[in-house]
Amino acid sequence: MLRSSLTAGTKVLVAAMPILLGASAALAQDAAPEAAPAVEAVAAVSTEAQFILNTFSFLVCGALVMWMTAGFAMVEAGLVRKRSVGAQCLKNIGLFAIACIMYLLVGYNLMYTDVTGYIGSFTFLYGPSDAELALIGGGEDTAAVVENGYAVMSDWFFQVVFVATAASIISGTVAERIKIGPFFLFVAILTGFIYPIAGSWQWGGGWLSEMGFSDFAGSTLVHSVGGWAALAGAILVGPRIGKFGPGGRINPMPGSSLPLATLGTIILWMGWFGFNGGSQLALGTAGDAAAMANIFANTNLAACGGVVAVMVLMSIMYGKIDLTMVLNGALAGLVAITAEPLNPSPILATIIGAVGGVIIVFTVPLLDKLRIDDVVGAVSVHLFAGVWGTMAVPLSNGDTSFVTQAIGVVAYGVFTFVCSLVVFGIIKMIMGLRLSEEDEAMGIDQTELGMEAYPEFGQTSAA
Amino acid sequence: MLRSSLTAGTKVLVAAMPILLGASAALAQDAAPEAAPAVEAVAAVSTEAQFILNTFSFLVCGALVMWMTAGFAMVEAGLVRKRSVGAQCLKNIGLFAIACIMYLLVGYNLMYTDVTGYIGSFTFLYGPSDAELALIGGGEDTAAVVENGYAVMSDWFFQVVFVATAASIISGTVAERIKIGPFFLFVAILTGFIYPIAGSWQWGGGWLSEMGFSDFAGSTLVHSVGGWAALAGAILVGPRIGKFGPGGRINPMPGSSLPLATLGTIILWMGWFGFNGGSQLALGTAGDAAAMANIFANTNLAACGGVVAVMVLMSIMYGKIDLTMVLNGALAGLVAITAEPLNPSPILATIIGAVGGVIIVFTVPLLDKLRIDDVVGAVSVHLFAGVWGTMAVPLSNGDTSFVTQAIGVVAYGVFTFVCSLVVFGIIKMIMGLRLSEEDEAMGIDQTELGMEAYPEFGQTSAA
Amino acid sequence: MLRSSLTAGTKVLVAAMPILLGASAALAQDAAPEAAPAVEAVAAVSTEAQFILNTFSFLVCGALVMWMTAGFAMVEAGLVRKRSVGAQCLKNIGLFAIACIMYLLVGYNLMYTDVTGYIGSFTFLYGPSDAELALIGGGEDTAAVVENGYAVMSDWFFQVVFVATAASIISGTVAERIKIGPFFLFVAILTGFIYPIAGSWQWGGGWLSEMGFSDFAGSTLVHSVGGWAALAGAILVGPRIGKFGPGGRINPMPGSSLPLATLGTIILWMGWFGFNGGSQLALGTAGDAAAMANIFANTNLAACGGVVAVMVLMSIMYGKIDLTMVLNGALAGLVAITAEPLNPSPILATIIGAVGGVIIVFTVPLLDKLRIDDVVGAVSVHLFAGVWGTMAVPLSNGDTSFVTQAIGVVAYGVFTFVCSLVVFGIIKMIMGLRLSEEDEAMGIDQTELGMEAYPEFGQTSAA
Repeated sequence: MLRSSLTAGTKVLVAAMPILLGASAALAQDAAPEAAPAVEAVAAVSTEAQFILNTFSFLVCGALVMWMTAGFAMVEAGLVRKRSVGAQCLKNIGLFAIACIMYLLVGYNLMYTDVTGYIGSFTFLYGPSDAELALIGGGEDTAAVVENGYAVMSDWFFQVVFVATAASIISGTVAERIKIGPFFLFVAILTGFIYPIAGSWQWGGGWLSEMGFSDFAGSTLVHSVGGWAALAGAILVGPRIGKFGPGGRINPMPGSSLPLATLGTIILWMGWFGFNGGSQLALGTAGDAAAMANIFANTNLAACGGVVAVMVLMSIMYGKIDLTMVLNGALAGLVAITAEPLNPSPILATIIGAVGGVIIVFTVPLLDKLRIDDVVGAVSVHLFAGVWGTMAVPLSNGDTSFVTQAIGVVAYGVFTFVCSLVVFGIIKMIMGLRLSEEDEAMGIDQTELGMEAYPEFGQTSAA
Repeated sequence: MLRSSLTAGTKVLVAAMPILLGASAALAQDAAPEAAPAVEAVAAVSTEAQFILNTFSFLVCGALVMWMTAGFAMVEAGLVRKRSVGAQCLKNIGLFAIACIMYLLVGYNLMYTDVTGYIGSFTFLYGPSDAELALIGGGEDTAAVVENGYAVMSDWFFQVVFVATAASIISGTVAERIKIGPFFLFVAILTGFIYPIAGSWQWGGGWLSEMGFSDFAGSTLVHSVGGWAALAGAILVGPRIGKFGPGGRINPMPGSSLPLATLGTIILWMGWFGFNGGSQLALGTAGDAAAMANIFANTNLAACGGVVAVMVLMSIMYGKIDLTMVLNGALAGLVAITAEPLNPSPILATIIGAVGGVIIVFTVPLLDKLRIDDVVGAVSVHLFAGVWGTMAVPLSNGDTSFVTQAIGVVAYGVFTFVCSLVVFGIIKMIMGLRLSEEDEAMGIDQTELGMEAYPEFGQTSAA
Repeated sequence: MLRSSLTAGTKVLVAAMPILLGASAALAQDAAPEAAPAVEAVAAVSTEAQFILNTFSFLVCGALVMWMTAGFAMVEAGLVRKRSVGAQCLKNIGLFAIACIMYLLVGYNLMYTDVTGYIGSFTFLYGPSDAELALIGGGEDTAAVVENGYAVMSDWFFQVVFVATAASIISGTVAERIKIGPFFLFVAILTGFIYPIAGSWQWGGGWLSEMGFSDFAGSTLVHSVGGWAALAGAILVGPRIGKFGPGGRINPMPGSSLPLATLGTIILWMGWFGFNGGSQLALGTAGDAAAMANIFANTNLAACGGVVAVMVLMSIMYGKIDLTMVLNGALAGLVAITAEPLNPSPILATIIGAVGGVIIVFTVPLLDKLRIDDVVGAVSVHLFAGVWGTMAVPLSNGDTSFVTQAIGVVAYGVFTFVCSLVVFGIIKMIMGLRLSEEDEAMGIDQTELGMEAYPEFGQTSAA
C-alpha cells in the first residue's frame, strides 16, 4: 500500500521539484505541544505523559546543544596557532558561563516576556512557579502546570544553550588578537540584550513572526546573528599581524591541530541533532516524533552534502582536499538546514547542505581578499550559509515567501551588525580591543593567561 | 521473594553453565515493537506512546552511533604517524558522508525492500510517505501510520549510521598508504551495494534469517563485514614502506597520540550503548525497556572484560601494559558482545568480552608475522572478535546453533572478502591504490591534503 | 495568571533569601517512582509507561555518567607532563573496568542488599530475575516486575558508573609517581568494599539516611569519598621529585595539553547532567520530569558560577586568568551543586557554584603550601567543594540541618580517610607504591607501558 503511493508520487516530473521536494502540508513552526486531533482515533498519549516527553526532549536535546561548547572549543583550539590555544579554550568556556548567567538575569525575560512570566522579570529571585514546585513535591492542584505541557526550566535550559552558541561563533573569528576582557564584555551585552531583543521579533512572537517569517531552529536567529557580530568584530579589531602582506599577499597561518578541529566538527554535528531536533519543541504526539525523525535525518544529510560538495569542488579546483574546508563544509551544511530541517525531502536536505558547502569554497577566499581576517571561517559558515538556509525555506515550506524571508534576513543583519559595531566600537574607545603588537607576537596565552597550551612541545612564541 | 528465587537458581551446578548463563526464554531478535500480551494485565502503553518511544529510541541511539564517527577518527588519528593524521581525519568524515548518501540513494532500499517500500526505489524523490507527512502536519486518518510503530526516517537514521561504522573499520587498517580517491570509491561501493546485499540476508529477512542465524546488533553483519573488507584492502594495498624488514623483522611504527586514541576508544564505548541498545528496535513495552537495560549493562561489562583480560595477559607475558592493546581489548569486548548483548548474564557478558581481549593479545602479533600491515589492529578487533562473538551466541540463546552461526560467519566472510578483493582489485588496476614511494615518505597529508596536522610541532615528513 | 503569582513572590524581601531561595516543599531524595496522587486528576501515566520512562532515564543518564570516564582521562592527560600521559590514560580506562567488575561481583550487593536481592550475593551466576527475563521474553504474569518501576539492570548500570567516578578522582591526584599495579589494587578495594560500605549508610537506607542526612547525587558519597581517598594516597605516596624545593619553593610542573584538559572538563560538565539528573531516580511522573528540569538548569548554572567566580578572582588577584583554575572552578561548581541540585532557585544554584570556584582559588595554593602534591587539583575540586555543597543543602532544603549534614561529612571523611590510609599503607608495605627515582625521572610511560604518548613530538624523558 505504502509502496504504491510512492510509485504514484514518482511519476511526477522533475520539473515540479521545488514543490515536490517539500512536504505538501506546511507545518507550523511554533506549534504548541498539543495532541493533533486526527490522532485521537488511536489510543492517545495522556497529558501527563506529554508533559514528561516534552520536558525530557528539551533536556536531552539541550544537553546535546550544551555539548556544542566543546565542539566550538576544539574547532577553534585546532585552527588557531599554538600560541593562542589556551586563550581560545578559556574564551569558549568563559563565554558559555557568561551567556548562561546573562540570559538568566536579563535575556530570557527580554526575549519571551509574554510566554513565561515567572522567569526573568529582573527579580533575581525567580525560578519555577510555586505551582510547579508543588508539582515536584507531589502537592495538590497541579493539573494546570501539567497542562502547560512542559517544565519551565527545561524550556529555559534549551533556550539558554542557543544563546551560548551564538556567542561561540564570534570567538573563532576574532581569535589570537582580541583581549579577553573586552571580548567577554561584548559577549555579556550580546547575550543579555542584542540576541534576546532580535530573537523576540520571531521566537518571542514579534513582528517577523506575525509577518510569516520562518526560521525553524535559527539559521538566522542564532547563526547569522553570531556571524554578523563576528564580522563586525573582525572589522573593528583588524587582522592579525602578518596575515595580509603588501600587494594583496595572504599569508597562511595554519591551525595547530587538525585532529582537534576534526573532533570539534563532529561534536558540533552531533550536538546539532539536539539543536534542530529539540526545536520541534515537543515530543508529546506521534506527529512530533515523526517530525523529529525527519529533522534528524535531514540534519545529518545536509552535513553530508556539505562534506561531499567541498571534497568534490576542492579536488576539481585544486587537486588537493583541504581538511579545514571540508570541516567547514559540514558545518555550513548544518547551518543551512537549520532554518527548515523538517519539510525538505532527504534529497533536498542533502542539496541544501551541499550548496552550503559550495558557499564555503568560494567565500572563505573572498573574505581573505577583502582583508578580513576570520581565523576559523565562522563568517562563511554561520553568516553566509545561514542566509542561504533562510532563503531556501520556501523551497519546501509553502507558508513562506522569498520576500518575507529576505526581509527577516535583512532585518537581523542590519540590527545585529549595527549594534555590534556600536558596542565593539564603544568598548574599543574605552578599553581597547586588541593586544599590543608585542603581546600579539608573544602570544595571548603568555600575556593574558600566563601559561602555554603545550609547554613541552617546543617553543611557542615567535614574532 | 525475588531473593529466594535466586537462591534456588544458584543451586544448579556450574557444569550447567552454558544453559544457565543465558536466559531460559530465548528472545526473538527482530521482534516487532508490539505490546507483549502478558503485559496487558497492567495498564498498557498506548499505541501513540509506543510510536513516540520507539522513534525517540531510534533517534537517541542513532545519534550515539553517529558519534562513533568521532571515535574512529580519534582512534585512527592517534594510532597513525604524525604525517598521516590529517588524511585519516578526512577519510573518516568523508566516508561517513559518502556512506550516508550512498545508503540513501541505493543501499537502504537494497537491504530492506520488503520492509520499507517508500524509501529507496532509486527514485531520487523519496522521503516519508504522504500519510506520515499528514501525521506531522496534524492531518486526518493517520492511525495506520501510528500503528506502524515508528517514524520511517527514524529507522532510516538508525540504519544508516551502522553502514558508516562498517566503512570506518577499513580506513584504519589501510591507513598511511592508500590514496584518498580510491579509498572513497571503495567506500561508495561497499556502502551502496556490498553491505546492503549481505545485510539483506539477515536483517532484510533473507535466507540466513530464515535458517535461524542470529546476530543481534552486528558482530558479523557490521564488524566482520568491515573487518573482511579491511583485510582484503590490506592484502591488496600492501604494507607501509619499512614496516617489515628483511629476516622477518617487524618495525614498530608507534602512533602519534595516545590520548587521542584513548579518547576515541571511550567515544566508541559510549556510542556502543546506542549501537547495541538501539538494536532492540523498540522501547514501547516494559519488556523492551528491560531488554535495553540488559543490553546496556552487558555491553559495558564486555568492554570491561576485554580491558582487564588484556591488562592481566600483558602483565604476565611482557611485564608491561601496552595501552594500545588495552584500548583494542575494550573494543574487542564490545564487538564480541554485539552479536548477543541481551541474553547473557552479566558474568557471561564479562567473560565473552574478556575472550575478545585475549583474541587481541594473540592475533595482533599474528597479523604482523603474516606481514599484513593493519595499522590500528582493526582486523583483530572487528573481524576476529566479531567471529568469536557470533559463535558465542548459542551459549546464551537456545534458539541458535553453532552450526547455523558458523554458516553465517562463513557466508559473510566469503561474500565480503571476495567482493572486496574484486572491487579493490579493479580499482587498483584502473587508478591504483597506493601513494608513490616518494609521496608515502613525504606523508599523505602533504601530498593529498597539502597541509600538516601539527604544523608547529616539529618536522613531520621524513623518509 | 502565572505572572501574577510571580509578582507576589518578588515582593518578599531579600532578607528572607535563605528560605525563599529554596523550594517551600522539601522533596524526598529517595522518592520511589510512584505517581504523585495530586496528578491523578489529569490523565495519568500508565504503570508500564512509567517503567519504560524510569528505565530509559537510568540508561540515558548512566551513559552520560560513563562518558565522564573520558572527561577524567582527558583532564588528567592534559594536566600531567608529557612523560606520564599514556599511563594516565591507561589508569582511567583500567580503573573503570576494574570498578565495574568489582561492583558487579561485590560492591552493589554490599551497598544495596535489602533493595535488590537478586543482584550480588557473591553468586557469580546472577542477573535479572526469572520474572524479569520472562517479561523480556513476553511471558505471562509479569505485572509484579512492571510494578517494581524500573528494570533492575538499568539501576545497576546507573549505580556502577558512580563508583567509577569516585575511583577516577584518585588517579589524577597521585599521577606521575604511583605504580600502576598498586593503584589498581587500591581501586579494586575502594570500589568493591570502601565505597559500597560507606554508600550503604545513606543510599542503602542506613543510619545516616535515617538520621536525615541528605546528599542528592553524591557531593559527599561520591566526590568527597574520592577526594579523601586521593588525599590519603597523596600523603602516603609523597610528592613528585622536584615539585617542592628547599625553602618552601614550589616548582610549577605545567600540564602537557590545555586543550585536552578543557575538553575533559566540558565532557565532565555534560556528563554531570546524567549524574545529577538521573539521581532523581525516576521519570514516570510530571513531577519527576519537572524535578529533572530544575536539576539540569541548576547543574549548568552552578558550573557557570564556578567559572565566572574564578575568572573574576584571578583577574583581581593576579591580573591573569589561569585556565586550569577556571576548569577546576567549573568542576568545583558542579561538585558543590551535586548534594542538592533540585531545590535551589537558579540564582542560588549559581551562587553555590561560585562559592565552589572561590574554594578552588584558595585551596589549590594551600595544598601546595602543605607540600601535598595534587597533580590535577582533585582534592580541592572533589573534597573541599564537596564538603561545601553538602553543608549548603539546608540553604534550600528545609528537611535537613547543618548539624546532620556535618555529621555525615565527618563520618564519611573519617571512615574513608582512615580506610584509605590503611589500605594504601598495607599496599605500600607489601609491594611499594611509587616508582623508583630513576623510573620517575624517565617517566612512567616508558617504564610501565614501554611506550611514549607522543613519540614524534620531541624528547619525552628528562630527569
